[in-house]
Amino acid sequence: MALFSGTAHPRLAAAIGHHLEVPVSPSQLRRFANDCLEVQLQANCRERDVFLVQPLVPPTQEHLVELLLMIDAARGASAGRITVVMPHYAYARSDKKDEPRISIGGRLVADLISAAGADRVLTMTLHSPQVHGFFSVPVDHLHALHELAGHFRTGDLSNSVVISPDLGNAKEANAFARLLGVPVAAAAKQRMADDKVVISAIIGDVRGRDVIVLDDEIARGSTIMELLDHLAAEDVASVRVACTHGLFTAGAIGRIEAHDEVREIVCTNTVPVPEESSAGKLTVLTVAPALAEAMRRIHNGESVSVLFDAP
Amino acid sequence: MALFSGTAHPRLAAAIGHHLEVPVSPSQLRRFANDCLEVQLQANCRERDVFLVQPLVPPTQEHLVELLLMIDAARGASAGRITVVMPHYAYARSDKKDEPRISIGGRLVADLISAAGADRVLTMTLHSPQVHGFFSVPVDHLHALHELAGHFRTGDLSNSVVISPDLGNAKEANAFARLLGVPVAAAAKQRMADDKVVISAIIGDVRGRDVIVLDDEIARGSTIMELLDHLAAEDVASVRVACTHGLFTAGAIGRIEAHDEVREIVCTNTVPVPEESSAGKLTVLTVAPALAEAMRRIHNGESVSVLFDAP
Amino acid sequence: MALFSGTAHPRLAAAIGHHLEVPVSPSQLRRFANDCLEVQLQANCRERDVFLVQPLVPPTQEHLVELLLMIDAARGASAGRITVVMPHYAYARSDKKDEPRISIGGRLVADLISAAGADRVLTMTLHSPQVHGFFSVPVDHLHALHELAGHFRTGDLSNSVVISPDLGNAKEANAFARLLGVPVAAAAKQRMADDKVVISAIIGDVRGRDVIVLDDEIARGSTIMELLDHLAAEDVASVRVACTHGLFTAGAIGRIEAHDEVREIVCTNTVPVPEESSAGKLTVLTVAPALAEAMRRIHNGESVSVLFDAP
Amino acid sequence: MALFSGTAHPRLAAAIGHHLEVPVSPSQLRRFANDCLEVQLQANCRERDVFLVQPLVPPTQEHLVELLLMIDAARGASAGRITVVMPHYAYARSDKKDEPRISIGGRLVADLISAAGADRVLTMTLHSPQVHGFFSVPVDHLHALHELAGHFRTGDLSNSVVISPDLGNAKEANAFARLLGVPVAAAAKQRMADDKVVISAIIGDVRGRDVIVLDDEIARGSTIMELLDHLAAEDVASVRVACTHGLFTAGAIGRIEAHDEVREIVCTNTVPVPEESSAGKLTVLTVAPALAEAMRRIHNGESVSVLFDAP
Amino acid sequence: MALFSGTAHPRLAAAIGHHLEVPVSPSQLRRFANDCLEVQLQANCRERDVFLVQPLVPPTQEHLVELLLMIDAARGASAGRITVVMPHYAYARSDKKDEPRISIGGRLVADLISAAGADRVLTMTLHSPQVHGFFSVPVDHLHALHELAGHFRTGDLSNSVVISPDLGNAKEANAFARLLGVPVAAAAKQRMADDKVVISAIIGDVRGRDVIVLDDEIARGSTIMELLDHLAAEDVASVRVACTHGLFTAGAIGRIEAHDEVREIVCTNTVPVPEESSAGKLTVLTVAPALAEAMRRIHNGESVSVLFDAP
Amino acid sequence: MALFSGTAHPRLAAAIGHHLEVPVSPSQLRRFANDCLEVQLQANCRERDVFLVQPLVPPTQEHLVELLLMIDAARGASAGRITVVMPHYAYARSDKKDEPRISIGGRLVADLISAAGADRVLTMTLHSPQVHGFFSVPVDHLHALHELAGHFRTGDLSNSVVISPDLGNAKEANAFARLLGVPVAAAAKQRMADDKVVISAIIGDVRGRDVIVLDDEIARGSTIMELLDHLAAEDVASVRVACTHGLFTAGAIGRIEAHDEVREIVCTNTVPVPEESSAGKLTVLTVAPALAEAMRRIHNGESVSVLFDAP
Repeated sequence: MALFSGTAHPRLAAAIGHHLEVPVSPSQLRRFANDCLEVQLQANCRERDVFLVQPLVPPTQEHLVELLLMIDAARGASAGRITVVMPHYAYARSDKKDEPRISIGGRLVADLISAAGADRVLTMTLHSPQVHGFFSVPVDHLHALHELAGHFRTGDLSNSVVISPDLGNAKEANAFARLLGVPVAAAAKQRMADDKVVISAIIGDVRGRDVIVLDDEIARGSTIMELLDHLAAEDVASVRVACTHGLFTAGAIGRIEAHDEVREIVCTNTVPVPEESSAGKLTVLTVAPALAEAMRRIHNGESVSVLFDAP
Repeated sequence: MALFSGTAHPRLAAAIGHHLEVPVSPSQLRRFANDCLEVQLQANCRERDVFLVQPLVPPTQEHLVELLLMIDAARGASAGRITVVMPHYAYARSDKKDEPRISIGGRLVADLISAAGADRVLTMTLHSPQVHGFFSVPVDHLHALHELAGHFRTGDLSNSVVISPDLGNAKEANAFARLLGVPVAAAAKQRMADDKVVISAIIGDVRGRDVIVLDDEIARGSTIMELLDHLAAEDVASVRVACTHGLFTAGAIGRIEAHDEVREIVCTNTVPVPEESSAGKLTVLTVAPALAEAMRRIHNGESVSVLFDAP
Repeated sequence: MALFSGTAHPRLAAAIGHHLEVPVSPSQLRRFANDCLEVQLQANCRERDVFLVQPLVPPTQEHLVELLLMIDAARGASAGRITVVMPHYAYARSDKKDEPRISIGGRLVADLISAAGADRVLTMTLHSPQVHGFFSVPVDHLHALHELAGHFRTGDLSNSVVISPDLGNAKEANAFARLLGVPVAAAAKQRMADDKVVISAIIGDVRGRDVIVLDDEIARGSTIMELLDHLAAEDVASVRVACTHGLFTAGAIGRIEAHDEVREIVCTNTVPVPEESSAGKLTVLTVAPALAEAMRRIHNGESVSVLFDAP
Repeated sequence: MALFSGTAHPRLAAAIGHHLEVPVSPSQLRRFANDCLEVQLQANCRERDVFLVQPLVPPTQEHLVELLLMIDAARGASAGRITVVMPHYAYARSDKKDEPRISIGGRLVADLISAAGADRVLTMTLHSPQVHGFFSVPVDHLHALHELAGHFRTGDLSNSVVISPDLGNAKEANAFARLLGVPVAAAAKQRMADDKVVISAIIGDVRGRDVIVLDDEIARGSTIMELLDHLAAEDVASVRVACTHGLFTAGAIGRIEAHDEVREIVCTNTVPVPEESSAGKLTVLTVAPALAEAMRRIHNGESVSVLFDAP
Repeated sequence: MALFSGTAHPRLAAAIGHHLEVPVSPSQLRRFANDCLEVQLQANCRERDVFLVQPLVPPTQEHLVELLLMIDAARGASAGRITVVMPHYAYARSDKKDEPRISIGGRLVADLISAAGADRVLTMTLHSPQVHGFFSVPVDHLHALHELAGHFRTGDLSNSVVISPDLGNAKEANAFARLLGVPVAAAAKQRMADDKVVISAIIGDVRGRDVIVLDDEIARGSTIMELLDHLAAEDVASVRVACTHGLFTAGAIGRIEAHDEVREIVCTNTVPVPEESSAGKLTVLTVAPALAEAMRRIHNGESVSVLFDAP
Repeated sequence: MALFSGTAHPRLAAAIGHHLEVPVSPSQLRRFANDCLEVQLQANCRERDVFLVQPLVPPTQEHLVELLLMIDAARGASAGRITVVMPHYAYARSDKKDEPRISIGGRLVADLISAAGADRVLTMTLHSPQVHGFFSVPVDHLHALHELAGHFRTGDLSNSVVISPDLGNAKEANAFARLLGVPVAAAAKQRMADDKVVISAIIGDVRGRDVIVLDDEIARGSTIMELLDHLAAEDVASVRVACTHGLFTAGAIGRIEAHDEVREIVCTNTVPVPEESSAGKLTVLTVAPALAEAMRRIHNGESVSVLFDAP
């Protein structure tokens, strides 16, 4: 087994390597004067079982092209098998054609990864489960619901409700609510004439409750902020915000923490952990053990399905 | 343009041909003694813009293989372009890998259609919008919400609510509710220990309301029947059931009609219209004009997007 | 090695497993309300050498789509290699384009099997040897002539002649005749104006002989029945009918047995053995040992060619 | 339409061009010092309907690689569509795997032609009709039976019989016999221990008859010579030898003409006409009008199937 | 014809549109909170001959992924044909594997462009002519030598010499020198132990000459700066610097202009024109007419080769 | 590991086998009467690591098609992996499109080798390093500069200079000169009006020097002969001619030896060694140990890059 990390999240790669007891092999990313990139893998790949760790986080295009070049380098170096470990597949959000003549980035990028020469993909909490089917190579699709549920179960859940910020993602929230043994609610969105999408209604009962908001990814947090306003209007008792992929761009943590009702923000380290939490409400759970265990099983040909046993 | 119909729904093909003022060209399906099929297209295809009409309805495997053979015959006959007109893509329901080692039929069948030689697909109301991305050929994805909304708008909607029988499909119901200017609700499901899925809760307010149930496809109608029981327990004022693909297998119409609260069942003719409605509650709307118009635009290179303008 | 069976011929799969001392792993075929199929392989496939046993027998389309879904499930489950064990490839009969605008099912289905993800195919007695070349994956093509010859050699062959019911297949009969050390004859067919094919002549000397009719597949047996009439007109001494694939649909066994001259019908178990022989003239030879030995050699990387040493 | 000829048979290309009233555009074949070839098409191909005429005749490898380079040049030059006009596909004879670990040249070369970029193929009298299915691009497969039959019908056929030199090809002879209204016979071959194949028997009645030998291709003529000996032993009245592809290598014409019973040798100009007939028994029929008509129909999108109406 | 521009060089696209008398159709590039991109083409593409103008200039990865998404959007929108107009293919510099386990970006990106769905490419002055062969789609490869030569011919060339900064690119300089009727020289480089490449010698006579430095691309200008020092040491009379792709990153123009011997810097507008020239030594030639003429010919199916007639 | 040799250079294959201590397995090349080839590999390939040794030397087309058939046979025989050992890839010289509508044989043949089923390629001294990128399978690209440098280092190099006969290839000469610690020069060529290419100038200082001419391949030697005349005019002290691929067709050795200044001709045995040297100036170095070592490392999954450490 040979383990390489792109520049997107070397700390996660190191943590995975630690759990696997496999060192991260060195690689080099050169940037030429014309801004083109070149990757050199600096350890023998020949007939090795190569794992390339790279979540698609900002700057996303840089990390994507770097990943494709890493795959190409591994293939050209006669790797025995190339597994892309992509804990966050950001392009999964471009999963449908809801306007004319738009790109479907989720499928395109899956095809690019195949075209570059990847043999398989290990990923976590895709925006929608259908994105699995965008890949023509085998995908092992883990989720972090067990990690998140384990965290929340340590507290009192008797008055809790899980809410999805989007009806389109409500199935995941429903699964999480069942894991916790609490009810579920969802926000319904509406596309306004001016091409803006707003929350039009909360479906389900949240009044006076301890609300757990569950989303797959939080970036700028605009939807969450809007939902917090709606929840405040419903006089909820408290709010905790949970997600798998905590990108928290543009000062999102600070803005969410500033809401009085918000008690805690919980995410995992599928993406680099932001350092910016000043109010101390941020909790980061690690998925390195889960990814390492999946990689160990992939390498050894053991069943991975026990790891993503649907809740 | 050359228009052929498989054996799945010749009446729809004829209606489309009528609207296009293009006759359905003859084709022949032979069944050999060993049960293998052979298709012969009995009109010149050479350099023609060939359209093959075939929804995937029971017996689904027969109709699928027949369709693949039709594509192969058209390709071998040097068709200029082959458009599969598949108003109901039943395999879209197999769109994720929610258990270990299962097939993802929605992606596989999309690949088979490409492998056989189709150049493009025209379809309607896919089970989830992500299935669009399963196809490697261009897809025109129509929906029937305008046809359905036009029908319901003729009545009084002041006390109405639209309900989705499944949280995973609630976005479609939300769009439909906005088209009608009414609120939305959804049923949350739960997978029981014995591998059975049951409705665990109704999310949103339906008590005393005139409920419009919206689903993409109704086959045996088990989910609908279960939902009707839940709705009855909520003392709804009335229920109307709407779907795009009205397969209604195993006496589903009769069983749904038998519910007292059910005022009407509305579907379209993307699939063959069942004749079995005895209580007279069934209304079938035609999508032939919409499909014909899309085909006309595809043939002439005009924009199709105006037809599926997202609601 | 992991061995799975589709629903077409579980008894053969079990017999193969018995010879290999490898159990048939469980799999599940679900049929949804809309008649779509879903396959779940219920044993770990990861990096395993997976063998899927499924002859294409009636209902052929059901078994074909089931096979494609099994391949898809195995590929998605990261099988190391997928070998399709298809003792009867029924679509091999669609091997040429003898009319305009017809499908060539033999090539199409071979492409579908590749598109689904199969790595190799093990099959038996293709309708024509050229069908081997329809596959883009390696094929091991066994025949059953040794099994059949072993059976016939137990009797007196001094007055025998082998006859092919079709000139297009006469080469196989010629090979079989040489194995038995007897002469060969063939029936010449003629396509009538009304699209019917009839036997126009017997080429070669059969008068007063003990005739062994050899065909690759017998389904409804229409050609055999017509040939038997011609043979009777030639005052043959006796007739024995042999084939590899004994589908015997629509009461074929009974009708053939009813001919006075017919002493025996011999086939193999590449397809499920019909139970319907009342006259007791049916003999079924087993090919399970041959298939098991080929699979053992494929798994171990030993030469398979010794098994199909051309006669 | 742009028409180019390789170096294999420029005279046929010119004849086709004459019938089409389309000049053969110039092209240049350069041979470098290291024996590599380079093709330059010397007329604009951009968006043209390009036809490349090249039968695979000796030196076969030279002509094959030249053809592949012509296809590559046309593709790189942005041809609108590339049709390979290959009146003789010599590699069709390698159509099965009758010994272990041999190449199947018929399928391989078909794949190479696709890989180089051909969009379709026009060919004549493939060695077996199944070879059609080796190509992944559409094939128009003409035969010359009508041309040959027209020639033979001018004489007295009352005592004639058609004989196939090989049981594997007897179906074609049967079709030809029916076109002429005469009976059919065939030679059965046997592979000897020393890897030599000999004729073991004549099946069907030829004694005292006027025999018409029909083969698809005659190269060295060894099989024909052996058959002539067998026919002489049967005291046939006369022999005429017919084939589509008259390669006649290694003095084959002279040797066949030297047989006393041989009255005439008939072939077509799918391959270059040998000049070597001294005894004057050779008749060459032209297929240029048939090929030109097929190309005209391909170009205009008219049905080609009327041209190869199966006899 | 439909003409779209990415965000890399809209001014060039507009100039091309002006020459073609075809307006640049609007398109929209959205950036999501997670930094993923989405492209919407805002004019009908159906069956249109679509041209997408996008040179690969910094930020290169952004522009590359944007281009791939544009291709995907055009394909999904049923474009008749997609031509990528990429006046500068920056990744062409990664054209060989001169160290172990490095990516070959020039081939990989060519494959990505194909995988996204491009039908053809129009480009200019590839770093090496072999890069043409990296693409599996047809490429029209223009050069700007005629534009550059036209500019230099306006002055006195009697004492001039053309020099290539790299032996590996000397063939292009040789062609340019012949166009101008002057001799050629070249710098030889040497890779130092510390992985740095330095000029080790000037090959050919430059002493006292008016030197024209020709390169395909100038980015940071490090090689040019080093060459200028060598030329100064050879007491050259004057220096003019010419290139096709004038990226001029990191203040390159200012640094080159600061050399006393440098009289002029000449480039073309294949990439956005830098505004930073303070010394006024920069001349920018336009290639818009050449690109527009090539596109007109591609659209009309006329020969493009006359435009890149090798010098 | 299974090692097979085509007919191009069995002596080299035997030498490689000797170094590997692996015998060359027998294979058979049959030529049919119609000049088609058929390959039979006569040792078990199933799951073996198969190496096929075949440089592309005259008759090049014969050897190329033979190689493709060998690959096809190995694939059909279920080889575990197929490595083409092609010490001389003659078609690499067709690496660009320098005239309209010509084939790019270097890319086409690379695609054909992939289409036939090769998994990887081992080659030596490609005409340009970019040709590496023409292959879609991994390539190990060795060079013979160390072998050649070792030979020349045995003599006095104090007055030596390396010259490249072509500016386009000067980088290789530059690398070789640095290995020897001597300066470099190059000949500049010019395409004349009559499509002939002549040397127009020598760039760099050669007068009175001991000149080492370095080329990748020498076939007819026309360029070398012309260069020798130019060098004589420069009064060089002596000339030694070196190349990797010494094809020496059409009496090239004799003509080069006849030049008075020529002291020695040095090549390697990547291609069959010509026997024709009468003047005794020819030295042939062996690359069999280098190829064998690379194959051993490929087979064992060890790094090959140490072998082609760029000079």
